[in-house]
Amino acid sequence: MHEIFKSYLTGQIKLTNEQWQLVFRLWKPTVTKRGEVLLQKGKVSHNTYFVVKGCLGIFLSGDDGHEYTRFLVFEGKFGSAFPSFTTRKPSAASILSIEASQILLLNYRDHQYLLDHIPGWERLFRINLEKEYIYSIQRIESLISMDAKRRYEILLEQNPKLIQRLPSKIVAGYLGISQETLSRLKSKK
Amino acid sequence: MHEIFKSYLTGQIKLTNEQWQLVFRLWKPTVTKRGEVLLQKGKVSHNTYFVVKGCLGIFLSGDDGHEYTRFLVFEGKFGSAFPSFTTRKPSAASILSIEASQILLLNYRDHQYLLDHIPGWERLFRINLEKEYIYSIQRIESLISMDAKRRYEILLEQNPKLIQRLPSKIVAGYLGISQETLSRLKSKK
Repeated sequence: MHEIFKSYLTGQIKLTNEQWQLVFRLWKPTVTKRGEVLLQKGKVSHNTYFVVKGCLGIFLSGDDGHEYTRFLVFEGKFGSAFPSFTTRKPSAASILSIEASQILLLNYRDHQYLLDHIPGWERLFRINLEKEYIYSIQRIESLISMDAKRRYEILLEQNPKLIQRLPSKIVAGYLGISQETLSRLKSKK
Repeated sequence: MHEIFKSYLTGQIKLTNEQWQLVFRLWKPTVTKRGEVLLQKGKVSHNTYFVVKGCLGIFLSGDDGHEYTRFLVFEGKFGSAFPSFTTRKPSAASILSIEASQILLLNYRDHQYLLDHIPGWERLFRINLEKEYIYSIQRIESLISMDAKRRYEILLEQNPKLIQRLPSKIVAGYLGISQETLSRLKSKK
């Protein structure tokens, strides 16, 4: 898993062999089962993740008891319950392994260690943070300014594998629409 | 304006006098009128902002022609059309001065210069980025998992000055609800 991790990051950071060995020691490989809970809502999130294979989902429970998909994290991406991991407060969201996955995990203390001791790590982290922030802004845009049909069309355009790979319950939750609306939109294509 | 800027940042970064002078030279003071357009939708955003006094609004036009408030930036906060400023692509959002404001602006080249040449600036920027990202995640949470009433209650709790200071059209757009729904919610309090 570490070699795949390294190949993803090679364009983003230049490290010596010793520095890579340190990075590998802190990012711990883990295998998860489909449906495995990595973080329960209400607990403080101590780990951030990198997905080597599979998919993690970050979920919210709404006031109405429904489960909503806040973010999905596929291969080659970092993901976390970011507010909880960063502020060290209980998480509003839970994290689930949607598919059987191979992931690397880094705990909060080691995350700070890399930021402080590996030259270029803070820049790598900052640039990935910028990408995630832009993605979240685009989700806000789609949620406040588009109807269900337009949101579905954009997802189909930008991330078709999401619709193919995942259960419709999760896709509907991601779009913030009901499963009935989703299947109506699907049948029109 | 620079002294207020410095007092906001003093807890976050330690700089020499020479470094502060450089920071002041690059962050340019500007006064805006109420309603002034700082960025038109469709143009590339070349500046990022710090609000010393007043309020900036970052707006989206929906498919239905309505204007939505993506973010509001009050005193002591950084703000920008972040996706466009970062990717150098045309902006989906516009930026307006909602009140007559005193702001500092930094262009993209000088932003990169500070990240590369002022020790600690990248950390300062990264930590502010984390806060903005957390705020955007909380907006996603409220948009996908709460009804209008709950969103209004939370805004009233966390940011009452926003409701008092700003026109109801902008508050409604921020909550992603109609002005009629907003005035119904207000009258119930």
